[in-house]
This record gives sequence, C-alpha cells and structure tokens, in this order.
Amino acid sequence: MTSYKKAINIIKNKKSLLCVGLDSDISKIPHNLFSPDINGLYDFNKTIIENTKEFAAAYKINFAFYEQYGSDGVCLIKKTLELIPSDIFTIADAKRGDIGNSSAGYSKCVFDFMNFDSITVNPYMGMDSVAPFLENKNKLVFLLALTSNPGSNDFQRLIIDNKPLYEHIIEKANNSFPTENVGFVVGATHPEELNEIRKKTENNFILIPGIGFQGGNIDAVIKANNNFPAFINVSRGIIYHNVDNFNERVSEMALYYKNAFMLSTLINCS
Amino acid sequence: MTSYKKAINIIKNKKSLLCVGLDSDISKIPHNLFSPDINGLYDFNKTIIENTKEFAAAYKINFAFYEQYGSDGVCLIKKTLELIPSDIFTIADAKRGDIGNSSAGYSKCVFDFMNFDSITVNPYMGMDSVAPFLENKNKLVFLLALTSNPGSNDFQRLIIDNKPLYEHIIEKANNSFPTENVGFVVGATHPEELNEIRKKTENNFILIPGIGFQGGNIDAVIKANNNFPAFINVSRGIIYHNVDNFNERVSEMALYYKNAFMLSTLINCS
Repeated sequence: MTSYKKAINIIKNKKSLLCVGLDSDISKIPHNLFSPDINGLYDFNKTIIENTKEFAAAYKINFAFYEQYGSDGVCLIKKTLELIPSDIFTIADAKRGDIGNSSAGYSKCVFDFMNFDSITVNPYMGMDSVAPFLENKNKLVFLLALTSNPGSNDFQRLIIDNKPLYEHIIEKANNSFPTENVGFVVGATHPEELNEIRKKTENNFILIPGIGFQGGNIDAVIKANNNFPAFINVSRGIIYHNVDNFNERVSEMALYYKNAFMLSTLINCS
Repeated sequence: MTSYKKAINIIKNKKSLLCVGLDSDISKIPHNLFSPDINGLYDFNKTIIENTKEFAAAYKINFAFYEQYGSDGVCLIKKTLELIPSDIFTIADAKRGDIGNSSAGYSKCVFDFMNFDSITVNPYMGMDSVAPFLENKNKLVFLLALTSNPGSNDFQRLIIDNKPLYEHIIEKANNSFPTENVGFVVGATHPEELNEIRKKTENNFILIPGIGFQGGNIDAVIKANNNFPAFINVSRGIIYHNVDNFNERVSEMALYYKNAFMLSTLINCS
C-alpha cells in the first residue's frame, strides 16, 4: 500500500487527524519519572506512544532532537520507530535536501534504513534536489511551503509575478510529481493562506504544525483545511506535563486534540 | 581562535583554497584496496586524508553519504573528524535548518558533539531558523545562496524587486549577523553571479562547490572570486581513481587542484 493510501485509511478508520510530535528533550522530560539521559528518552517515547496510540493518526519524529546525541540519537530514532504500531503513519521531520546523489543518500537513510512512511524536505535547491526522495513511489514527501515560524516572512512570502514564493514551490512541485507522492508543510499560524493553498492542493496531503505553544488556532485551521487530507501536529501540548498523573494527562490531551480536530469526518479526500 | 581566523590563517600559510570533499561511497571506493563496507569507508577516508593533508585547506564531509548507513554512518563522521589534523578547516555539509529549538539541536550535534569548524545551512525558513547556528560566535555558518545544481534555477534565481532571491538572502543575512560568522555557498557553475556576489560580500567566506564532475571552470571561478576569502571544493576529481597507484594519484590530483586554484596568494582578505 502507498503511504498516501495508508494515511487516508488511518484518518478514515480512526477519525483522527492528530499527529503527535515526538520532540523529546532530556531537559524537558519529567525527571521524577524518566532518567535524564538517552535511556530516559526511550522510556519517555515508549510512555508517550502507549498513551496516545489509540488517538494518533501519525507520529512525527523531529531529527534535530535526536541528532544532538550523535549516533546514540540516531539509534533512538530507529528504536522509537519500532515502538510505533504499523497501522499508524510515521513522518521523518528531517528537513533534508541536497543535490541529486546526496538527496539519494538521505532518502536511503529515511526510507530504506529506517522505513519511515514520509519525510519533510526543504525545496530551496530546486526540483532536482527533491526528485530522489520521490523515486520511491510508495512514499510521501512533504515539501516546506509556508512554515509556522515568524521567519517564514523573510523569504517564503516574497512576491514574484503576483504570487508568493511558496505558491511557486507548490505549483512547480505539483507540475513535476504525482499528487499522491508530494505533500506540503503549511503552518497552523497562517490559516488564511492555508485556505488559499487548499484551493490548489485539494488532494495533496498537508502537514500542519504550529498548534499549541506556537499559537495556531484550532478552529481557524480546521475551517481553512476544509476537510482535505491533512495531519495536524501537536508536540509540547501533548508530551510535556508537570503533574502527578503524567500518563493519564498525556492520554487526555491526545484525546482532546483528536476530538478538537475532528469536527467532521474527512469526506473530501479521494 | 574563531573559525573565520582559523580559515584565513590556513589559506595564507598553506597558500591553498582547496577543500577536499569526502563524498565517500561504498559502491565507488576501489574494492581491490578497500572492503565494500563501513570499515572500508573508514580506511578509504584515512587514505584520502593522509594523501591530501599536505595540500588541503579544508575537508568537507557531506552528511548524506554517511547517514545512509544510519548510526554507524554518524559514528564514521566522528571517527573521520579525528583523522583530520587540527590545523585544517572542517565543514559539516549537512544543509540543516529548522525552527529555533530544532536548529539548536542540529547546532549541538555539529558544533558540540562533533566539533566541526563550520556547517552549511538552508535559509529557506528565514533568519530565526539560522540564528541558533550563529549563537556560537566562534563558528562559521555557510548559508545556501546559489547552489551548483541545475535546480538552482527553479527558485533561487526568481526575481523580487529587481534582485534574485539569493541576493535577498545574502543581504538579509549580512544585515542580521556578523560578517565573520556567516558565509555563503555559491556554485562554481555560476562564475558571473559569483563575481557579482563578491562585490557585496568581500569579507564573507564563500564555499564554492561544483568544480570537476559538475562542470565548473577553474579559471573563471578564480577570476570571479577575485582573491576574496573562499574555499573551493573538489570531491570526485580527487578521491576516485581506478588506477594501480591510487595513493599517488590522489596526492597528485590534490596538488594539481591546489596549484590551479592558487594563481596568486589571497591578498584581499582582512
């Protein structure tokens, strides 16, 4: 089954758009429950997955949080993947991108060595830097379009021929690659732009980060997304709590976000 | 000493702009000399470093070639760094970039865990995604500006207010960060643009890939660079040869490129 179909099936079956971001950080995990080291991070991820898997449609692993521990961190990515049930979607949030043979190396890492369902890719170097990730037609590649951070104003919104740069990227990608292989990252902090983007990307998958700590508004995002294929990511709002009943709180928050995102079932995707 | 000063000193002392790219690939190393596995890659890197260190000003490690072997590959990056003499410059060609706290994680990996002198960073997400790499004032961060691949035409050259996107990136970075901390990647395949860029970046370091296999012309690049601070990278033209006297050939080609780049000593840098 392609990653695209896997993703659609999960969303329909679980009635969930929730992506849980495993932005796991030794300094932030509760130290009364987990040791402040890489073994503690593994136990933390295990606990988060066990208490959210009923509600999560996807897990997103941000490589930066793991690579700071070098090769041990890369091992932890792989070990964490093994904890995720096979019927839940996985996203390598690695934001890679390089010239052809180098992108092929990154693609081997994420798809062959680690067997993720999808990856995030930075498209600045152009379509030939993106293409190697798309050679595996079963996988899904999320290109950064309009990211959730304030710096998205610096270059992504610059206007060329009456259109912002991110729209050029979306159009070029959709002209170059099959819809089922290429998706986009659009931050929850930009609901108006998300709504415009969705008019041109009805069947592309969109990964929407930025809910919670970053200030994205849930109702505005759900409305803007208009029931088209999407995962909405929450990291800190689900995984970090300073409470006695940590496990229950994680589970409650995952359920809260799952329900908040699912105002209606996903009826518009093919 | 800052990375910037280290780099200037090396170039002046060795009279070399040569950066040797360790794009080491199990399928391409000579199998009569090296085992076709990760141990063979280590031996290959050792041989390349031993036979080029007299002439190289810098070594560039492209992470993609290593990450495809997972955690073993990350270990190999670290073990390869230990083989490089401390008076030669090191570049983590990782092309990272993410929102603030994630970029901080990548920065920890490359600067704290691995102790590289510099890193390549993709600026598409904006200046707040670049800033965490620049918090360590001793390091040098090369932002992708105009890359050597054909796909650099797709977005990097799009015109906004009569200037291509890559010029906006260069200007914004130079307005945001000290010259000694921020450099740029400009492909050898674009000598005219390099010459224009050098007029606005006299004291920034520029990393110039694309000589050899990718078709960059040495004389055109040297003239365009106009003796300003730069490393010129060669990978395949130095490290891969199908000959009996492999070690000598590697050494000869490093000397060839070192001399070809050094038409005159670097007199314009501060």
